[in-house]
Amino acid sequence: MPLLRSHVQGGWHTGTGEGRPVYDAVTGEEVARLSTDGLDAGAALDYGRAVGGPALRELTFHQRAALLKALGGHLREHRKDLYTVSARTGATLGDSKFDVDGGIGVLLAYASKAKRELPNDTVYVDGDIEPLGKGGTFLGQHVCTPRRGVAVQVNAFNFPVWGPLEKLAPAFLAGVPTLIKPASPTAFLTATLVELIVDSGLLPDGALQFVAGSLGDAFDHLTGQDLVSFTGSASTAQTLRTHPAIVRNSVRFSAEADSLNFSALGPDATPGTAEFDLFVTGLVTEMTVKAGQKCTAIRRAFVPSQHVDAVISATSERLSKVVVGAPDAESTTMGALASLDQREEVRRSVKALRDAGRIVFGDPDTVEVTGADAQRGAFVSPLLLLGDPQRAEPHEVEAFGPVSTILPYDGTDQLIDFAARGQGSLAGSIVTADTAFAREIALGTAPFHGRLLVLNERDAKESTGHGSPMPQLVHGGPGRAGGGEEMGGIRGVLHHMQRTALQGDPDTIAAVTGRWVQGAERRETDVHPFRLHLEELKPGDTLVAGPRTVSQQDVEHFAKFTGDTFYAHMDAEAAAANPLFGERVAHGYLIVSLAAGLFVDPDPGPVLANFGVDNLRFLTPVTFGDSLTVTLTCKQLTPRESAGYGEVRWDADVTRQDGQSVARYDVLTLVAKKES
Amino acid sequence: MPLLRSHVQGGWHTGTGEGRPVYDAVTGEEVARLSTDGLDAGAALDYGRAVGGPALRELTFHQRAALLKALGGHLREHRKDLYTVSARTGATLGDSKFDVDGGIGVLLAYASKAKRELPNDTVYVDGDIEPLGKGGTFLGQHVCTPRRGVAVQVNAFNFPVWGPLEKLAPAFLAGVPTLIKPASPTAFLTATLVELIVDSGLLPDGALQFVAGSLGDAFDHLTGQDLVSFTGSASTAQTLRTHPAIVRNSVRFSAEADSLNFSALGPDATPGTAEFDLFVTGLVTEMTVKAGQKCTAIRRAFVPSQHVDAVISATSERLSKVVVGAPDAESTTMGALASLDQREEVRRSVKALRDAGRIVFGDPDTVEVTGADAQRGAFVSPLLLLGDPQRAEPHEVEAFGPVSTILPYDGTDQLIDFAARGQGSLAGSIVTADTAFAREIALGTAPFHGRLLVLNERDAKESTGHGSPMPQLVHGGPGRAGGGEEMGGIRGVLHHMQRTALQGDPDTIAAVTGRWVQGAERRETDVHPFRLHLEELKPGDTLVAGPRTVSQQDVEHFAKFTGDTFYAHMDAEAAAANPLFGERVAHGYLIVSLAAGLFVDPDPGPVLANFGVDNLRFLTPVTFGDSLTVTLTCKQLTPRESAGYGEVRWDADVTRQDGQSVARYDVLTLVAKKES
Repeated sequence: MPLLRSHVQGGWHTGTGEGRPVYDAVTGEEVARLSTDGLDAGAALDYGRAVGGPALRELTFHQRAALLKALGGHLREHRKDLYTVSARTGATLGDSKFDVDGGIGVLLAYASKAKRELPNDTVYVDGDIEPLGKGGTFLGQHVCTPRRGVAVQVNAFNFPVWGPLEKLAPAFLAGVPTLIKPASPTAFLTATLVELIVDSGLLPDGALQFVAGSLGDAFDHLTGQDLVSFTGSASTAQTLRTHPAIVRNSVRFSAEADSLNFSALGPDATPGTAEFDLFVTGLVTEMTVKAGQKCTAIRRAFVPSQHVDAVISATSERLSKVVVGAPDAESTTMGALASLDQREEVRRSVKALRDAGRIVFGDPDTVEVTGADAQRGAFVSPLLLLGDPQRAEPHEVEAFGPVSTILPYDGTDQLIDFAARGQGSLAGSIVTADTAFAREIALGTAPFHGRLLVLNERDAKESTGHGSPMPQLVHGGPGRAGGGEEMGGIRGVLHHMQRTALQGDPDTIAAVTGRWVQGAERRETDVHPFRLHLEELKPGDTLVAGPRTVSQQDVEHFAKFTGDTFYAHMDAEAAAANPLFGERVAHGYLIVSLAAGLFVDPDPGPVLANFGVDNLRFLTPVTFGDSLTVTLTCKQLTPRESAGYGEVRWDADVTRQDGQSVARYDVLTLVAKKES
Repeated sequence: MPLLRSHVQGGWHTGTGEGRPVYDAVTGEEVARLSTDGLDAGAALDYGRAVGGPALRELTFHQRAALLKALGGHLREHRKDLYTVSARTGATLGDSKFDVDGGIGVLLAYASKAKRELPNDTVYVDGDIEPLGKGGTFLGQHVCTPRRGVAVQVNAFNFPVWGPLEKLAPAFLAGVPTLIKPASPTAFLTATLVELIVDSGLLPDGALQFVAGSLGDAFDHLTGQDLVSFTGSASTAQTLRTHPAIVRNSVRFSAEADSLNFSALGPDATPGTAEFDLFVTGLVTEMTVKAGQKCTAIRRAFVPSQHVDAVISATSERLSKVVVGAPDAESTTMGALASLDQREEVRRSVKALRDAGRIVFGDPDTVEVTGADAQRGAFVSPLLLLGDPQRAEPHEVEAFGPVSTILPYDGTDQLIDFAARGQGSLAGSIVTADTAFAREIALGTAPFHGRLLVLNERDAKESTGHGSPMPQLVHGGPGRAGGGEEMGGIRGVLHHMQRTALQGDPDTIAAVTGRWVQGAERRETDVHPFRLHLEELKPGDTLVAGPRTVSQQDVEHFAKFTGDTFYAHMDAEAAAANPLFGERVAHGYLIVSLAAGLFVDPDPGPVLANFGVDNLRFLTPVTFGDSLTVTLTCKQLTPRESAGYGEVRWDADVTRQDGQSVARYDVLTLVAKKES
C-alpha cells in the first residue's frame, strides 16, 4: 500500500519507512499508509514564510478573492472524485456533499464577502480615525497587516474537506500561507483534495502546504508570527496549547474542541405544533448526518418535562426508519463511523452516559447493517438516551457518534442553568415561535455559546439547521469548546493579521493607508475631477465649488415643492422654541441638493452614477442668507477587478460663509476606467 | 507596620501572620507589609460572579459609563493623596501625574467613548445583519453579552494607578466584575487607590475586589467565563498561561510582557532638522520618565550610520542635564527605580547588553543623587549604549530602567529587518517628515508591533509621544510582547464579552437585539409616529406615506433650482448611453427630498431635528412617471441618560409603484422625552 504524499517546499514528498495503515471505515480494508519520516517540517514552515507569504502579500484582497473563487469552481468541477473517496470514510453521498460542497461553499462565500467588504488593497483599515488632539494634526488609525508567519491548521477526522477549506479561506485572504495537517483516519480524502488544489495551479507557490501525517518537530519552530488553528479533542488542544514554543512566543492559538451542544424545545411547542415536529426532525438529522460525528451535533436535547414522553415517542419512530449501511447502498440513510477506534470510543462514552440515564432507542452493541459487514465496518446504531439533568455526565461526556440525550426541564431559569452546565459549547438551538421566550433563553445562554439558532415555522424553510457552521458567522465556543473563533466573515481574515494602532499626522496616515483623511493635503485638480478616469484619480484630488446663497425664498420654495413643511423651516415662532435651532433653518435635504448642484459636472464623463451617501451629519444650522461652499475630495478608490469601473468615495464638506462646516458626508460614485 | 488590607466579598480583609515587607524606593524604609493568609480567593471569585456580575448587568452601557465618569471625577478630586503616596515608589511629581492623571484619563475617555459608540442597552449588536436565505426569513446577527465570570487583573509594579484603571474601565463597561492583584513593590499605592474607590461608594458591590498580595489558589478556581489580564514579565506570563485551569477551561488570557521597543530616525532627519531634535528629545524622555520603567520605553534607537555620532553627542548632552534625586527635591528630573531589586536587575541586564556594545553615557554603578542616599534608594544613572545590531542581545535584553541602546542601520530593508528582531514589541516610532519612508517602514514593521508612532514637525505639537498608550488605541504587541490587546476603545470592552452568532427569523432577531430589522413586524401607529415621545416609541412603529408621482417637470425643475444638471437627468441621448440607466432618471437627492416631504409631520412635536442620514443607497433608477411611497419604521432608540431627548434611528424605504425599493437609508432624529 503506497504512502500518502505530503506537499511541501513546492513539491511532493513521500516519507520513508512502512508507515501506519489507515482503514476503510466500511470494509476494514487498508486504504493508505502514513509516514512523514524524513520530512523537514521546520523547512516547510520556512518555505511558507519565505515563498508563500511574499507571493500572497503581492496580491490585493480582491485578487486573492478571485483566486479563491476560481479554486471553488475548480473543486466543484471535480467534486465527484471527492465523493468517491469520501465514501471510504463511511460517509453517505449526503454526508459527502455536506463535507465537500460545504467546503466549496465556504471558498465561494469568502470570495464574495471579500469583494464586498474588503478594499482592493493590501492594507486593511480597521475602524474609524481617532482624533488624538484638538488641532487635528495628530490622529490614530488602526490598520491590519498580514502576519509574516504560517497558519498551521490541524484538522479533525470528521470533515476532511470542509475542515481544511474553512481554515484555508480566511488565512489565504489575509495573505498568510497555510500548512494543512489532516487527522490520520481520513487523511487520504484530504490528500485527494490537496492533489486537486495543486493540480489546479491556481494558488501561488508556498501558499498551501500539506503534511500527510505527523508534524514531527514543526511546533518547535513556531514563531510569534505563526498561528495554529486546531480542531479536535480537548485533551490534544491542551497539549498543543502548552507547547513551549507556543507559550514562549505567544503564538496565536485557536481551538475548536469538545462541545455538549443543546437543543431546547420551547414550552409553546407542544405536540402537534410545527415547532414540535421541527425539534424532532432536527434532533434526528443531527444524530444521523455524518453518523453524528459533528462537533456541532445536538448532544443534549432539553424538553419540558410534560413533553418528554411525546418527544421520545416521536423521535424513536423516526429513528426506527433510519437505515444503517454501506454508503453506496441505495437505501442507506446513515453510514459508518470513521474508524473502529471511534466506535469503541462511542461505546465507552455511552457507557458513561448510562450511569446518569438510560437508553430509550437503539443498542450500542447491535445494529442491522445493509450492504456491509456490521463487524468489519465501523457501524453503530443511533442511540437516544433519557438522562438526569442534575447529574454531571450528560453535560460533560461527548459521545462522538449518533448519540443524543433527552433531558427534562421545568421553566426558563432551569433551562438556562442546564445549558450553562455544558461549560461552553459551539452551538445551541431554541425551537420556539415565542419571541419573548427566545429572547430570554438566547440572552441567558449566549455567554456560553458561539452560535445560537432560533428555529420556528417562520424561518424553518430557509434555516440551515442546528449543525451547520456558516462562513458568515463565527464558529467556536468558549470554555470547554476551546475558546476559539473561526470564520465569522471578515473577522476570520483579521484573525490572521496583526492589528496595529498607527499614530501620526494626517498626511502620513493618508500615505500609509492609501486613503485621504481629514487634514491631509488636498490638491485642486486642473480639470474637474469628474472628468478624470479611475486610473487618473488620486486620493486628495479636490474640487471647491460655490458659493451659493440660501434665501428664505429658496427654503419656502423647496418646502412647497417637496411637501416638507416641517415647522423648523416654516414657522418662525415654533422654530424659535426649538432647543436646537432658535430660528427658521434650511432643510438638510436642501443643503445636500444644493451642494450636488455645486459639485456636479453636467456633461457625460467617467462618473457613471452617484449610488449612495454615507455618514451624512448636519453639523450647524443654515439660516436665511447663509452662503454655502462645497469642498469635494477624493477619499478612497476601489477598482473592480472584473469590471470596467470602480467605486470612488468622496469627502463632501459643505461650509458656511464663516468656514464652519454645516454638513459633512461621503458621496459614493461609480467611475469608469480609462481602458474599459 | 500594618498589613495592607484587601477588599473582598463586600468588605475589608486583613491577612494573618507577619507578612512580607515592602520598602520605600527612596529611603529604603519599610512602607507596608503584605499577607493574604486566610483570604479565600475562590470565595472572592464566587462573590464577583454572584454579586458583582448581576449588579453590573442590570445597568446599561451608558449607565456604567456614567459611573466611570463619576469615579474619574472623584479620583481627580483626591489625586493629591495619590501623588503623595506615589513619591514613595520613587516617582517624581511628573511621573506620578503620568500614572495617576493618565489612569483617570482612561476612565473619562472610556466613559465618553461608551456614550458615543455603545447603545444605551445591555446587549451589544456586533456588525451587520447577515442574510442567510434569499427569502429574508432567516438572518444572522452577532451579539455580544457580558461574560459571567470575573476579570482577574494582574498588574505590574511600574503603573500602580494607571495599570489597574486601564484594565478596570473596559471590564466595567462590559458588565464584568474586576479582581485587582497589584505587584508587591508598589501595592501600597494601589491600595490607596482602591480605598478611594471604595470610599466613593460609586461602584456596585462586588464590581471591584482587591487582593493585596498573593492570589493564593485563585487560579485553580477559574472557569471558562473568567478572564485573566496580565502585565509583567514574560516568564510569569508563561507560568500563568499554562496554569492547568486556564488551559483546561480555555480561560481568555491576555498578556502584556517584555518588549524591545524601537525608535528610528529617518534618513531625512539630519542634524539640524526639527525631526532630529524630536528624536533626541523623545529618546531622553523615554529614558527618564518613570526612570525608564515603562514597558513602552525606547530600548532600541535605530540611527542611520552616518548620524550615529551626532545622535550620541546630542543625547549625551541632554542626559548630562538630568538631575537624579529624591522625588520631592525641587531640582530632581529623574527619580528612583521602584526597588533595590530592580536596580540589581537593571545592572544585570546592562552587563548582558555590554557584551554586544559599549556604554557611551553613564555608569551603572555610580550616580550623583540629590536629596537622598544613593545607596539606600534605588537610584541609577541614565545609561546610553552603542550596540551592534547584528548581535542578539540588543534585540532581546530588556533593561527595565533608564537604559537605551543606539543601533546603526543602513537603508530601509535593514531597518525593517532589525525592528523585526525584537520578535514582537508594544510600540515603535519613526521620526521622519517623509511620508513615503514612513509608509514603507510602518507597513514593514506593523506585523511586529501593537502601536506605531510617526513623529515629525507636523504632529509634534499635539503628539502624545512614543511611550504613551492611549485608551482609544490598542495596547499590546505580538510575540515576545505577550500577544495581548488591551484598551483599543470599544475593542477592549468586547474583549470581556462573548460574541455569539444568533440565527433566526426577523421577529426573533428584533426581539433579542431590541432593534427592528428588515422583515420584522411593522405596526402602523394610530397617530403619526413623529407625534410620539421617546418613551412612547417602539422599534417597529411605522408610517407609510405617499404616493407621489415624479414627473419630467419635477426633475427639470429640481435640476434648475439646485443647479444639478447632470446629463443622466437632463440629456436623453447621453443617459441612454450610460450603462446603468439607459434613460433619463430622477436625481437621488430629489428622491430623498420628496420622501422627507411625504413622511414629515409639519407641526411642532417631540421630533426636534433630523441630524443625519446613514447608509443611503440608490437601488433602482426612478424614471418619469414613477410614483414613490415611503415606509418609515422606528429601528432603534437611544435615550440619553442626562438629556431631555434621545436619538431615534428610522429605516426609510422608498418604493416605486411596483413595490421595488428605489432608495433605502437610515434617518437619524432627536426625539424629546415626555418627561423632559
